[in-house]
Amino acid sequence: MSEDRIWTAALIVIGDEILSGRTQDKNIAQVALWLNEQGIRLAEVRVVADDTAAIVAAVNELRARNDYLFTTGGIGPTHDDITVDAIAAALGRDVIIHPKARAVLEGYYATRGGLTEARLRMARVPDGAELIENRMSGAPGIRVDNIIIMAGVPHIAALMLEALSGQLDGGKPMLSRTLGCWVQESEVADLLGDTEAAHDGCQIGSYPFFRDGTVGANFVIRSTDPVRLDGCVDDLAARLRAAGREVFADGI
Amino acid sequence: MSEDRIWTAALIVIGDEILSGRTQDKNIAQVALWLNEQGIRLAEVRVVADDTAAIVAAVNELRARNDYLFTTGGIGPTHDDITVDAIAAALGRDVIIHPKARAVLEGYYATRGGLTEARLRMARVPDGAELIENRMSGAPGIRVDNIIIMAGVPHIAALMLEALSGQLDGGKPMLSRTLGCWVQESEVADLLGDTEAAHDGCQIGSYPFFRDGTVGANFVIRSTDPVRLDGCVDDLAARLRAAGREVFADGI
Repeated sequence: MSEDRIWTAALIVIGDEILSGRTQDKNIAQVALWLNEQGIRLAEVRVVADDTAAIVAAVNELRARNDYLFTTGGIGPTHDDITVDAIAAALGRDVIIHPKARAVLEGYYATRGGLTEARLRMARVPDGAELIENRMSGAPGIRVDNIIIMAGVPHIAALMLEALSGQLDGGKPMLSRTLGCWVQESEVADLLGDTEAAHDGCQIGSYPFFRDGTVGANFVIRSTDPVRLDGCVDDLAARLRAAGREVFADGI
Repeated sequence: MSEDRIWTAALIVIGDEILSGRTQDKNIAQVALWLNEQGIRLAEVRVVADDTAAIVAAVNELRARNDYLFTTGGIGPTHDDITVDAIAAALGRDVIIHPKARAVLEGYYATRGGLTEARLRMARVPDGAELIENRMSGAPGIRVDNIIIMAGVPHIAALMLEALSGQLDGGKPMLSRTLGCWVQESEVADLLGDTEAAHDGCQIGSYPFFRDGTVGANFVIRSTDPVRLDGCVDDLAARLRAAGREVFADGI
């Protein structure tokens, strides 16, 4: 296997609350940043409703063409939490009560009113799955085949990611550096394109903003190769300065 | 056409900056909330890279099965802005310079250094497209067939939505009300499911949270029918109170 192989992941954000606009998603960005550190690229994201057919279709399409598939949302105890059933259906597996998850939940709820039928729903997993620890609320995440099933509440999803850190095979982490200018990106568009074209293995993204009534842009240079990255950053900074622009080394 | 017809939209968020985690998306929530007001349901969202094949595939799949398809991102003047070309390719149309967009940009840049070749890129549209006004930066949004192409910068996208308000055919707006309890959702899971089952045309979502070390949940009741909505809310509040819970009428 080449060390230059690119490892990819997809993410499915499951939940009517995102599609209704009630809840601002925070999991896409945190999963993306965590994946970068693991040397895995987030290739695509879908947000789907609490609807079995929609989840099954997305799961089967995305797990087949990515090294990993992450999901967030829909693993709680209530009637709208259908993620485990939908993923089991996508995999053609039964749903079972995981004995260790049951034990963890029994311990967690021992002083919180006991393990009711509804709470026991959170011990349900597709047959053959492993658990992902969740120190916060007892209810575990789930890993089955190349699918990683996480909570929708962002700080619980963060704990599950922490528990998975260093556990997944990946490639070289994507590195990035940012240069900022108080410039309209349209004034340096050709310069950006020419610089990117001159540096194999590097991408330059241009992100304009308006702040305090002034127009600026940050230019994000990305590469998995630190030498190439620095070469591209230095070249871009030199070209911007040659065009009479002040360059801010860590962005604006 | 039945007045109960459900109008749907999909959204494609285009941009490496979202998939890298550099930028926290804010367009999903604002498009979702705006669509609710227009009587259109956001049915699905995809986040795709700055990659022509990925954009074309997503555009053709989603425009076919929704009344509307919105996109955000990738319509600026730089080399990584490929949305217009990708959508034209998906539609099998040429890309042309829209005369009115050119005139708008000429006016906008008259006092800002003139309309360069790079800036003129922002006047490019799929053949047959109409423009969507953008008072902020001159560069317009684009409407072609059932596709609405918007900027990625959230407050510019917001201006484009404002310009479109009331312009799209839609159905009844989705209404929602929220009840809050300081309760673990697992303690009332059956109650929630039973209440939803008793009220046709209403959905109940359960959204747990942790605040100041205490566990709570908000229950969001949604319906397009105000009478059914109120009936479901009143019934849920009564059942929660009968179970000994204090109910907060606008959520927590």
